[in-house]
Amino acid sequence: MYTVTFQLSEAEPVSISVNPGENLLEVARKANVAIDAPCSGNGSCGKCRVRLVSGFLDSPISRHITSEEYDAGWRLACCSKVVGDAVVEVPDIATAYRSRMKIADLDSPEEIAIFENLRKAMMDAGISFHSDLSFLPLELSEPTLDDTMPDNERLLRAVEAATGCPYENIIMPYSVLRDLSWVLRESEWKVKCVISKDLDRIQIRDVLPADNTDPIMGFALDLGTTSLAGLLVDLETGKILAKASGGNGQIRYGADVINRIIESDKLGGRRRLQDAVVKESIIPMLAQMYQSAHVNPRRIYRMVLAGNTTMNHLLLGLHADPIRMEPFVPSFFQTNYIYVRDIGLKMNPLAELIVAPNIGSYVGGDITAGAFASMIWNSPELSLFIDLGTNGELVFGNNEFLMSCACSAGPAFEGGDISCGMRATDGAIEACTIDKETMEPTLTVVGGGVPVGICGSGIIDIIAELFRCGIINGKGKLVREGRRVRHDEHGMGSFVLAFQEDTGGVKDVVINEVDIDNFIRAKGAIFSATTTMLSSLGFDPSVIERVYVAGGIGSGINMKNAVTIGMFPDISLDHFHYIGNSSQTGAYAMLLSSEAKAKVEELGRSMTYLELSNEPGYMDEFVAACFLPHTDASLFPSVEVD
Amino acid sequence: MYTVTFQLSEAEPVSISVNPGENLLEVARKANVAIDAPCSGNGSCGKCRVRLVSGFLDSPISRHITSEEYDAGWRLACCSKVVGDAVVEVPDIATAYRSRMKIADLDSPEEIAIFENLRKAMMDAGISFHSDLSFLPLELSEPTLDDTMPDNERLLRAVEAATGCPYENIIMPYSVLRDLSWVLRESEWKVKCVISKDLDRIQIRDVLPADNTDPIMGFALDLGTTSLAGLLVDLETGKILAKASGGNGQIRYGADVINRIIESDKLGGRRRLQDAVVKESIIPMLAQMYQSAHVNPRRIYRMVLAGNTTMNHLLLGLHADPIRMEPFVPSFFQTNYIYVRDIGLKMNPLAELIVAPNIGSYVGGDITAGAFASMIWNSPELSLFIDLGTNGELVFGNNEFLMSCACSAGPAFEGGDISCGMRATDGAIEACTIDKETMEPTLTVVGGGVPVGICGSGIIDIIAELFRCGIINGKGKLVREGRRVRHDEHGMGSFVLAFQEDTGGVKDVVINEVDIDNFIRAKGAIFSATTTMLSSLGFDPSVIERVYVAGGIGSGINMKNAVTIGMFPDISLDHFHYIGNSSQTGAYAMLLSSEAKAKVEELGRSMTYLELSNEPGYMDEFVAACFLPHTDASLFPSVEVD
Repeated sequence: MYTVTFQLSEAEPVSISVNPGENLLEVARKANVAIDAPCSGNGSCGKCRVRLVSGFLDSPISRHITSEEYDAGWRLACCSKVVGDAVVEVPDIATAYRSRMKIADLDSPEEIAIFENLRKAMMDAGISFHSDLSFLPLELSEPTLDDTMPDNERLLRAVEAATGCPYENIIMPYSVLRDLSWVLRESEWKVKCVISKDLDRIQIRDVLPADNTDPIMGFALDLGTTSLAGLLVDLETGKILAKASGGNGQIRYGADVINRIIESDKLGGRRRLQDAVVKESIIPMLAQMYQSAHVNPRRIYRMVLAGNTTMNHLLLGLHADPIRMEPFVPSFFQTNYIYVRDIGLKMNPLAELIVAPNIGSYVGGDITAGAFASMIWNSPELSLFIDLGTNGELVFGNNEFLMSCACSAGPAFEGGDISCGMRATDGAIEACTIDKETMEPTLTVVGGGVPVGICGSGIIDIIAELFRCGIINGKGKLVREGRRVRHDEHGMGSFVLAFQEDTGGVKDVVINEVDIDNFIRAKGAIFSATTTMLSSLGFDPSVIERVYVAGGIGSGINMKNAVTIGMFPDISLDHFHYIGNSSQTGAYAMLLSSEAKAKVEELGRSMTYLELSNEPGYMDEFVAACFLPHTDASLFPSVEVD
Repeated sequence: MYTVTFQLSEAEPVSISVNPGENLLEVARKANVAIDAPCSGNGSCGKCRVRLVSGFLDSPISRHITSEEYDAGWRLACCSKVVGDAVVEVPDIATAYRSRMKIADLDSPEEIAIFENLRKAMMDAGISFHSDLSFLPLELSEPTLDDTMPDNERLLRAVEAATGCPYENIIMPYSVLRDLSWVLRESEWKVKCVISKDLDRIQIRDVLPADNTDPIMGFALDLGTTSLAGLLVDLETGKILAKASGGNGQIRYGADVINRIIESDKLGGRRRLQDAVVKESIIPMLAQMYQSAHVNPRRIYRMVLAGNTTMNHLLLGLHADPIRMEPFVPSFFQTNYIYVRDIGLKMNPLAELIVAPNIGSYVGGDITAGAFASMIWNSPELSLFIDLGTNGELVFGNNEFLMSCACSAGPAFEGGDISCGMRATDGAIEACTIDKETMEPTLTVVGGGVPVGICGSGIIDIIAELFRCGIINGKGKLVREGRRVRHDEHGMGSFVLAFQEDTGGVKDVVINEVDIDNFIRAKGAIFSATTTMLSSLGFDPSVIERVYVAGGIGSGINMKNAVTIGMFPDISLDHFHYIGNSSQTGAYAMLLSSEAKAKVEELGRSMTYLELSNEPGYMDEFVAACFLPHTDASLFPSVEVD
């Protein structure tokens, strides 16, 4: 047995005994040390870099590590075997990318505008903001020797009298009965119940002293493959009490859904994947939100989950393998009677977990919730809704029909598969212009500080600008020379956006030809999915009247540049709308409004699903779209190519 | 700090650090060492005897400990203060009384007869043996690329087709969804569901491979203040798969309900009292039953609990103090929507906990279940149902009315408050005759071995025989002399039933005047309750046509002797019926039959409750009944008094 010690930047070192020959990434997982491994350890992504401080590892040279870096001790954890005692440094960048939590500024104008717009659009569509949860204040008669009715019956009779609901249709569960006697006496028989109404039944969810001031709360979770975002909401007013986002802890089991399903199918895998998201991501996020909003989690009576089909299966601890294997059958599209406690979260003991419905193995609740929030189902205009997540999902249609499809865009839009990629948090380049003459870039950095990496909207700008300036050609290859253009020993070109010596950052921020190629494939997947879906309906992209763009790519997305690189159809820029994290806003609507929840479920049942891989022309469309802007330039008349 | 070490007969010694002056019984509780303390530590019962092996204790002399015993190190734990390091032996007899479990012989003729009789009586009363739980075998179509309906919908559609229940009224909870995908594929789409029907809804409780042979099981628990008894039942056939009994672990917090309520009202007390019965009594009992019956607890879909009002409140972890304090209001009479998991038992995750209804603070579910099992509600004869537990409860009436009352008989019927008392398990004297001339007793011992103590039916016989033989007078004082009659230094007389040297037992088995007095008060409570309740209705005991006797006193009860001592009314002996543990048989009926459950609930609603303490003549009746057989001998014409 050897000993491997992991040095972490923000925690005590962790040591573990290891058998000779064990894989270092597996060892780190056993030691509960988080190392990014978006490709789940097949050596292709290069994210799992660690630095050998002392001792021995058997690690091959990799294209992701230069000779200088190798000499300095850098290794890929997934390709390293333990052959002796070793001390390994796990760099901060890895954990920062993965799990840095962010509590959003609730008062920022953009934040307010997104939810204001949603509320207005819902009102316009005639959807009211009422959930089935409400307070019921009650003043009970105190028992006497002549009136020894037991406590539960006394309360039930009072609820019956106040609501008209027949006694036998009023449900009082154990969590209410448990402290009832105490609450009634402490409050001197003046209480307020939290109740929910369901057809002819009333359920008592809580009994509180009348002077308790806690709001009735709900929790909306957008669960993405890469990142998650949560909202804590006052269900009576719609007010957002706390908002947070963070990485999905499952990422160390793979960047995409397929690798995670494979991992979950191994012995104990369902539990590991569930724990990774629940214990490592959701529970810490909730703890932060409770603290920032000063609230009691027992007053959270409902949770809405919007996530893709694989994510909601893994969160629920279900077998996900049938999603991946022909004939691609998930455990559920719609479900019911699931409770927050079933996944190990402690809110009110009766809090339901409402899952936005899936419509296929690869179009899930994030899209049904998002399509609701886009409101394209409420307009006669033919609209395209595009959710740029780890998968790209598209919905096309209007108030008469909706069709959806999914394409594997990869994590590029969220900064994955890009050597300097990162999520749109502090330090990310989110916008860029380049001077055609000097080739000098002007960068906009999230948070205003030193550039650390590039997020999705930044990559779009950079590629569009490099292309516009003739620095790269239609295939994404560097074709000009200059002080910012480099080629490595294998001939791979890269463009330096920020020199370390100029910015005082930790390293140069660059984009290389592999990054550009990855991104071109991602945007090609989106565009070819668009054209293939439209052509299955007998349409071409010119019929599209509106485009709604959603996803973590950020509000900084430059639609003109996205058209320039051939990602979105070339329609008037006025007709593009960035609607933010529509999965989250849709979940928020489902939380607040029973009618919105019913509408999302109706969308789930009525939306058709197109399996792109069954469409004959799809591969050709994809290949044609892997070019800037497209091999068929006539599709992009507005794009000037030198 | 001192160190106290407890030596236990069947476990490793336990040591604990103690502050000077701490009470030894409290110290034992902290150290989780079980010492009997039926009186909850007020020095009155003398059960908490321990032996000081070495070191120091500050303990007064007690009437419960002779000088010889004191010299040998015997002390009452509840009266001892820690004043130095000490090693204390906790005798086996204490734990044996409290918690020895017994797995009953299911094939004994008495066992079979009790349940056979109940089934026959239920059939005669037109109550069918059907619960709402049943198997539903299903063969599903396998999914294909043309039929990718998700697993849950596929199953729900099949249940809809097989039962006619509309899709939206079929409930599939998380515990079923969780492994659904795996079960369907492993079973090759041939499954059997366990379903329950409730009005217009079907709930899927389980989905098993079609070839699974587990029965649908239920658990019936009679939860007494002193002891508990459980049945594991096949709900389809009614077959009893396992049967067990044991002591209630709460006894160390007090022998009666009042002391336990007081204890439960202290900080953390609700949890302690709940843990004492759940973790120390029910869970070990279940573990034994699972082992003896070779069954999987996940296949237990329902539990019925029959216990008195305080016991069911403490088991549920509810505040019990309002039961004890004027105006005596419990948390519930009837309840619903409580699950087995709510009290920390692991059966099927959906298993309900059905609680036999209470009708007052001192007449609980044991009596409603027991009154059902007595079948007195189904006959025009005026009948008296008597449950001899730690409390005595009585129900009087017929198919037109029922009235109930409770009296505090104390634990004497179960062998408590009696110096050599014990439950009716191996070693208990359960019957006795005495030769009038020689005063020599002939004993019947449970299990046929050496007499260790005396159970309730034995005490009745002994007192009746001592009285018949003129050895004690009507006040219970010893009035003859002989080798078996002793008087101690305080003048208290006792009668030796078995000399240690004759039997080879561990000590003499005796009954003393205090025991006899305690028992006379217990029987006096029962008889005066009978006369008081009847007189409230304008009746006297001569109207009683049948007497049904239930309780842990044992099938060995000699009705003639019980009449002789003035415990039961003096009617024809043919009209007495011992119906065993009616709380348990009633719970069994509720488990197996939805109609029986509904009938018990109806009894709970319709039975009136008489609070004896509010009845003007009760105390006089009680005093008059504390005599053998009664101060008014005309009430017992069949009893010949010398």
